Amino acid sequence: MKLYTYFRSGAAWRVRIGLHWKGVDFESVPIDLRKGGQAAAEWLARNPQGLLPGLELDDGTLLTQSLAILEWLEETRPEQPFLPQEPVARARVRAVALAIGADMHPVQNLGVLKRVEALTDAETARRWAHDTVARGLQSVEGLVGRNPGPFAFGAEPTLADILIVPQLFNARRFGVDLKPFPRVLEIEAAASALPAFQAAHPDAQPDAD
Amino acid sequence: MKLYTYFRSGAAWRVRIGLHWKGVDFESVPIDLRKGGQAAAEWLARNPQGLLPGLELDDGTLLTQSLAILEWLEETRPEQPFLPQEPVARARVRAVALAIGADMHPVQNLGVLKRVEALTDAETARRWAHDTVARGLQSVEGLVGRNPGPFAFGAEPTLADILIVPQLFNARRFGVDLKPFPRVLEIEAAASALPAFQAAHPDAQPDAD
Repeated sequence: MKLYTYFRSGAAWRVRIGLHWKGVDFESVPIDLRKGGQAAAEWLARNPQGLLPGLELDDGTLLTQSLAILEWLEETRPEQPFLPQEPVARARVRAVALAIGADMHPVQNLGVLKRVEALTDAETARRWAHDTVARGLQSVEGLVGRNPGPFAFGAEPTLADILIVPQLFNARRFGVDLKPFPRVLEIEAAASALPAFQAAHPDAQPDAD
Repeated sequence: MKLYTYFRSGAAWRVRIGLHWKGVDFESVPIDLRKGGQAAAEWLARNPQGLLPGLELDDGTLLTQSLAILEWLEETRPEQPFLPQEPVARARVRAVALAIGADMHPVQNLGVLKRVEALTDAETARRWAHDTVARGLQSVEGLVGRNPGPFAFGAEPTLADILIVPQLFNARRFGVDLKPFPRVLEIEAAASALPAFQAAHPDAQPDAD
């Protein structure tokens, strides 16, 4: 299995956590989309969205979209689950994952920030990213605040934690004050102690600079 | 079951399609979030994201996030499936759903357009919405273009079609030329013939103005 990845991509990071959590062997194939050029054109030919990550199966099938890949992992490797069994509990975990994966991350990704900067200036784009993440984390704290810890939904990590941890890296990059989000910080601390989360961190990737 | 909805909300529209497709009886509770005020404050107390839709189960449990609600529907009512059975096929359907639900819709929702307008002007915000949807539909056309029709993945509608149809309503509102997307238009035509899609349309809602 090959993961097309970029060490700083939050979406690729999520899939790295999932693969390590399930104990799946995979080869990392780094693509630096910021550099554009030939690599980006070749990648676009394979993935019409032109985004990372992509997971190539041994028969050449390419899966895209981090949440779709993670659901596929959960369905094909049910051991070490990151979704609970009961449908309402699954819906709650997925709602937190989507609050980040749909309503927060895509509104602060590199492409959107470049568009904001082109319309305004670099400082306004930075503030856009900051405000998007600060408001988003406030929602996440509201969604998981009353759940038992240390993870978003209790004693074991779920898909929610897999989305939360990479988003905090961006939060710090954009200068978001995390003190108002104690549950979110508790989740990050608990996750940081797990080998799967450690192995997936940007600093542990072959393309880290 | 009660659906907290707004007739023009694309996310609520998706869940309406899913409920009608599964033959689930539900009561629509319209909330006009554009008016803000008391309704919005009460809703925020129930859903920390403050977004629509919400599906209230008979025991009072509130489910949020349209894609999480649709997955719950599929898990609890497997008849009339809108996901295929095979894991890779499921991942492909979900990838199209997420290309819209994560990478397109949230970047052109009302909140983001208000932020763009506050930084620039109304015409720039309209162009932002237009460009977001035009680029997004180009990706979707690329993802489903070579699949058999008339739906996104063949003879029966899937989660992908449930996301595509409401997005086209916004595309027209923003003046996007749909001629370059023949597969997407074929999907819309096929879906429009189905009672579940007809019953979910904004014009058929009790709060339509």
